Amino acid sequence: MDTDWLDEVRWDAGGLVPVVVQDHATARVLMHAWMSREALALTVSEGRAVYWSRSRARLWRKGESSGHVQRLRAIRLDCDADTLLLSVEQTGGVACHTGRESCFYRELRDGRWVEVDPVVKDPAVLYPSGDR
Amino acid sequence: MDTDWLDEVRWDAGGLVPVVVQDHATARVLMHAWMSREALALTVSEGRAVYWSRSRARLWRKGESSGHVQRLRAIRLDCDADTLLLSVEQTGGVACHTGRESCFYRELRDGRWVEVDPVVKDPAVLYPSGDR
Repeated sequence: MDTDWLDEVRWDAGGLVPVVVQDHATARVLMHAWMSREALALTVSEGRAVYWSRSRARLWRKGESSGHVQRLRAIRLDCDADTLLLSVEQTGGVACHTGRESCFYRELRDGRWVEVDPVVKDPAVLYPSGDR
Repeated sequence: MDTDWLDEVRWDAGGLVPVVVQDHATARVLMHAWMSREALALTVSEGRAVYWSRSRARLWRKGESSGHVQRLRAIRLDCDADTLLLSVEQTGGVACHTGRESCFYRELRDGRWVEVDPVVKDPAVLYPSGDR
């Protein structure tokens, strides 16, 4: 299998690249995550977002606990080849573990971070085992 | 001056956070950059995007060479408080040093990164001194 496209990505010292995740339908930026080379290869071969969880130090198939899988629509590389942009179909319309559409739900207003987006689904329902 | 909002950001070991930059009008993701605490404070006080350039190890007022300033419309923080999302007005409609609207102009197609967006402005005109 040709892996030149994986070699063209400029992995950082830890073997990772940042990933911006955008909803293909609404264009909302849903989240920011990281991928290893293996995660990127799996994302493309499986057609769903697979990240590298830095906190858990393991591969993380988005939706493995919540069912909120991200189906891959397109993947882009930036000019410096060190950041990826994923366009996805967000199952359930919720990307954030807090039960919101996007992880970016706080906005700076008058010197304070204000929660401006509603909780769409109860996190206790999303993660019945408590394991997000 | 109240700086609690700056303290709430979870700066990484190098004192930086990743920043996703989105065009407020088109919703396109224009670029991915980094901010230090000072860069974020200046971005808010000046109303324009100021980044930390890791390659040049200095503050970088976006547009300082090209004139393609990014006017701040809104700024958001994610659930883990370790990534920012900027909504900007992109002067000149070009964010990328290659003269394209977005830095994410290559898409993976059949195992190859393919340039799918046009060059809007000649980079030689954007950076007459050669200094991007």
